[in-house]
Amino acid sequence: MRIVRFSIDGNVAFGAVEGDPLPASGGGTPSGTEGLVVDIMKGVPFADFELSGTKIPLDKVRLLSPVLPNKVVAIGRNYAAHAAELGHEVPDAPWAFFKPSTSVIGPRDPIVYPSFSSEVHHEAELAVVISRLCRDVPRERVKDVILGYTCANDVTARDTQRTEKQWARAKGFDSSCPLGPWIETSLDLEAAGDLAITATVNGELRQAGRTRQMLNSIEDLIVNITEAMTLLPGDVLLTGTPAGVGPLLPGDEVAVTIEGIGTLTNKVISRG
Amino acid sequence: MRIVRFSIDGNVAFGAVEGDPLPASGGGTPSGTEGLVVDIMKGVPFADFELSGTKIPLDKVRLLSPVLPNKVVAIGRNYAAHAAELGHEVPDAPWAFFKPSTSVIGPRDPIVYPSFSSEVHHEAELAVVISRLCRDVPRERVKDVILGYTCANDVTARDTQRTEKQWARAKGFDSSCPLGPWIETSLDLEAAGDLAITATVNGELRQAGRTRQMLNSIEDLIVNITEAMTLLPGDVLLTGTPAGVGPLLPGDEVAVTIEGIGTLTNKVISRG
Repeated sequence: MRIVRFSIDGNVAFGAVEGDPLPASGGGTPSGTEGLVVDIMKGVPFADFELSGTKIPLDKVRLLSPVLPNKVVAIGRNYAAHAAELGHEVPDAPWAFFKPSTSVIGPRDPIVYPSFSSEVHHEAELAVVISRLCRDVPRERVKDVILGYTCANDVTARDTQRTEKQWARAKGFDSSCPLGPWIETSLDLEAAGDLAITATVNGELRQAGRTRQMLNSIEDLIVNITEAMTLLPGDVLLTGTPAGVGPLLPGDEVAVTIEGIGTLTNKVISRG
Repeated sequence: MRIVRFSIDGNVAFGAVEGDPLPASGGGTPSGTEGLVVDIMKGVPFADFELSGTKIPLDKVRLLSPVLPNKVVAIGRNYAAHAAELGHEVPDAPWAFFKPSTSVIGPRDPIVYPSFSSEVHHEAELAVVISRLCRDVPRERVKDVILGYTCANDVTARDTQRTEKQWARAKGFDSSCPLGPWIETSLDLEAAGDLAITATVNGELRQAGRTRQMLNSIEDLIVNITEAMTLLPGDVLLTGTPAGVGPLLPGDEVAVTIEGIGTLTNKVISRG
């Protein structure tokens, strides 16, 4: 199931997208919504819900971030080739940091260039959406706390990241966490662990990798994080970015595509 | 006004504490609640509210964290003597990091020693509680976005902090952010900028400083943070810790006292 959160006529709801699946992968143009419909959900995806049977063309609604997380836990340097391209060693243990809920935006929402940076980068990432309150999750139960997967862009003020050794501003500014277009619930852990992931800027391929290149797997990360803290329904885990990160400028359109999930597209704009 | 959040008979409410003020400062024993009463608030302190006139002895209620923040923004190395005691340089710019809402606990709630650490430290800090949604706050408007001040303990797994260069686990584990006992709303920015702050462990003085020793003032920090991100009503800013941080062990009782505010006391327990 592909779970969206959307607004129509000022109302916000969850729904399930039906229609032809998207192209499985690739660095091309963003996917369209023609022919897709959304079946409105009664309830929320973190509890009992049913589909109402009331269907709306997807291009009649505004897609929102598919979830409003309480917290986003992200991982630095989880792909060796990305650590290398920034001139860094691979860390011994995962480096976890937070992106706040105020940084989250949805598909097609603008990434607003922050005033304090002149070097904003895209970072395409697989995002894991947590289904239930959990703590100290054993490896064999990790699959039970995952609702599904979506695309994320861990937008980063690279210059700020160099000067401020903790990354709250560099990676936590408003609009620095695009998520979407929907939560794909049909992938199991094995499938999620080997998906093509790409980023394009204005249609040009910039990042290309596979999730099997992660240094710490999804299971590793959820065990590691929940050893320390409780995750809540709707919390999101960003799993790191493959090589190829690079600059975004106002006017650019950046698209993150993950095989079997879809494409998350956002434009970059100036503040004004 | 001293604003508390409390529970009684399973109900949660805000209230205003009345009665003799606490001792202004000092590293002694935690303040008692004898003789204090709480006047139950109708509404919430972030919007229009009034006091009901219904008063309960404070020792009949359970005090909760005085606010449930969406995010806690904290600042590393904001006192020169603390940076020096850890062998660090003073940073050129504030280092902001997040503590998640799941790390927040209230007065008398236990600090639970995490399984992955054997070196948990106390860090006494002045906490600023934000009153309203704000972004790009100009220096002269900072006073308008502050509801009040409370005591915080930025509990830190020092060994984990050394090995994981981003601090989500080291400073974001469950129970690592005690806040309380209440939000003192009567201090202005000038007063808040020069308060005695102490930490005691089992009654012994460990940390002692004054908020005027901050490298970046409260105004500096709110301007810096809101340049990047929106703060929400109830969000909390931790302003850094003075020198004297040190270990906590299960069984210890740690108390943070700030002049003009009060004392936040928590016991450390083992997981089990």
